[in-house]
Amino acid sequence: MTMSERPTGDETLGGISERETLTRIFPRLPRASAALVGPGDDAAVLRAPDERYVVTTDMMVHGPDFRWAWSSPYDLGWKAAATNLSDVAAMGAVPTALVVAIAAPTATPVSHLLAFADGLRDACVALAPGCGVVGGDLSVSDTFTIAVTAFGDLEGRAPVLRSGARVGDVVAVSGDLGLAATGLRLLFERAVDAAGEPSRERFEDVLREHPEAVTAQLRPRPPIGDGPLAAVAGATAMLDLSDGLALDARRIADASGAAVDIDPTVLVAGRPDIALADGEVIAALTGGEDHSLLATFPPDVELPGGFRAIGRVVAGSGLLVAGRAFDERGGWDPYVGWNGGTG
Amino acid sequence: MTMSERPTGDETLGGISERETLTRIFPRLPRASAALVGPGDDAAVLRAPDERYVVTTDMMVHGPDFRWAWSSPYDLGWKAAATNLSDVAAMGAVPTALVVAIAAPTATPVSHLLAFADGLRDACVALAPGCGVVGGDLSVSDTFTIAVTAFGDLEGRAPVLRSGARVGDVVAVSGDLGLAATGLRLLFERAVDAAGEPSRERFEDVLREHPEAVTAQLRPRPPIGDGPLAAVAGATAMLDLSDGLALDARRIADASGAAVDIDPTVLVAGRPDIALADGEVIAALTGGEDHSLLATFPPDVELPGGFRAIGRVVAGSGLLVAGRAFDERGGWDPYVGWNGGTG
Repeated sequence: MTMSERPTGDETLGGISERETLTRIFPRLPRASAALVGPGDDAAVLRAPDERYVVTTDMMVHGPDFRWAWSSPYDLGWKAAATNLSDVAAMGAVPTALVVAIAAPTATPVSHLLAFADGLRDACVALAPGCGVVGGDLSVSDTFTIAVTAFGDLEGRAPVLRSGARVGDVVAVSGDLGLAATGLRLLFERAVDAAGEPSRERFEDVLREHPEAVTAQLRPRPPIGDGPLAAVAGATAMLDLSDGLALDARRIADASGAAVDIDPTVLVAGRPDIALADGEVIAALTGGEDHSLLATFPPDVELPGGFRAIGRVVAGSGLLVAGRAFDERGGWDPYVGWNGGTG
Repeated sequence: MTMSERPTGDETLGGISERETLTRIFPRLPRASAALVGPGDDAAVLRAPDERYVVTTDMMVHGPDFRWAWSSPYDLGWKAAATNLSDVAAMGAVPTALVVAIAAPTATPVSHLLAFADGLRDACVALAPGCGVVGGDLSVSDTFTIAVTAFGDLEGRAPVLRSGARVGDVVAVSGDLGLAATGLRLLFERAVDAAGEPSRERFEDVLREHPEAVTAQLRPRPPIGDGPLAAVAGATAMLDLSDGLALDARRIADASGAAVDIDPTVLVAGRPDIALADGEVIAALTGGEDHSLLATFPPDVELPGGFRAIGRVVAGSGLLVAGRAFDERGGWDPYVGWNGGTG
């Protein structure tokens, strides 16, 4: 069979060159409006109009961070973009660009990388218009691994750090609380076969029955635009909720030398019409990976965008729920939480 | 045995939290003088005094890119920094900062990550003073993987692209040619056991007998300072020699719409006193991973720093050696060159 007869879907990374693969990927990726020099040279050159830029990096590894039985390559590209855009937004910055390094097994179909690129693109277009991909790297690995570094523009504003909360500030959140963790729990409980291994067939059922939670986990839509809005409104501290509200609220409290007191009656997973049971409160407090924005605002500020009040900054230290110390750790630590044998 | 009695050398990533690991690593890393906000928040904030910044990313994967039998964790940290700094320098920029994401098996000793951090630091101090680490990420993976993204400051100059070479320009190189590839060849040929597997014991012998070549491969010292010097001197095009002189010279030729003609009599591996045999000329032309700088300069320019003339830009296309077309590809393509079964 000659090259031109070979069905594209059969091609693998091992069968064509890195250069050829990149040649196919790059046209699918969004252009960054901040790029002065885009992909293709030793490095890209980006604009920094206010003489500063924001930088964050994150890795996603097959096994601990995703499983092909549950995530499509498109989902994965989307999530790799969304989770990094969210860290940029949590500084109060507008995301401008990404660089993306991928290490993949040689048997990976080229079509998977193209779908991954489509997911990256669609997430940028949907969540952070103008943000594009300005560079990348392709390597071979037995373990599919993605490393994204994201950049942002503070537009002349001060960065919103975790350390600026003051006693009396309102604690507010934009985005879901616990929904992504509920999705992950459902996947681990129900989208597995009899041996406990992730199953694509079972996954389809779970997705059909719980589309909101599963989609929040696999294709999150963090409120990127609310990051800069919070900064403009005067947010005193802000974090991306990657590790769960309890852990991230405690981080703001500790860094700011105060306590955060959460009102459990308003911890609704993006559904202000639904009152939560106790277990749901715990899920909202401890579930990670929502990539919602947690911010503190002076008490007289009208909360911008999708922010809703969930508590107060008070004198003291650590995290309180309804005025009482909340010690459950919550969140996700890859070294403690991950058992290589299960996935 | 209590925590305080446990020898530090026994601790693994799986045994302590990500946060604890990062707490130990960050004090060892160099601070970036360009950092306005360093590690510890959602993102770092860096200065861009001329309203632009340079960005490049690269991944190193255990197996295709390094083997523990040959690379110490310190070597690996050094190389991860050096190879990225070189891409920044090849734009004519001064390296300012790195972000570093690592995915490691849970059984990895914490001491390995600390040694890796020491290598990163020492490479920055030695090759690009003022450049520091401003952020990172730690993940779990069966495959040890490192992703570095590096940043640079053009100091008001135009970036030196691959596309600016003009007929009549001098082609010059700073740094070794083929030495790193010679080191790699020696390792594959001689630092292996009877079954062809990388061997630490055999490695020690090869290192003792060929310290220059092996060190060029494992702990490269690219001429970072010569990148900005070339830009100041008026370099018309520049590339980092990661894929070998033949391939990278052809890239400059193709991007610039001209041909590059290399003089084989001056292709010396950092040793102008030694005349090369034919095989050594081929090695100098096709060996990758030197991370030397290849640049073109107008004919009237006095070559700066460590640059030495090795050829001319002439009318035509592609790569010539002594005026004749040179078609040997050279270079390193991970998808074609890597056989997962061998190591």
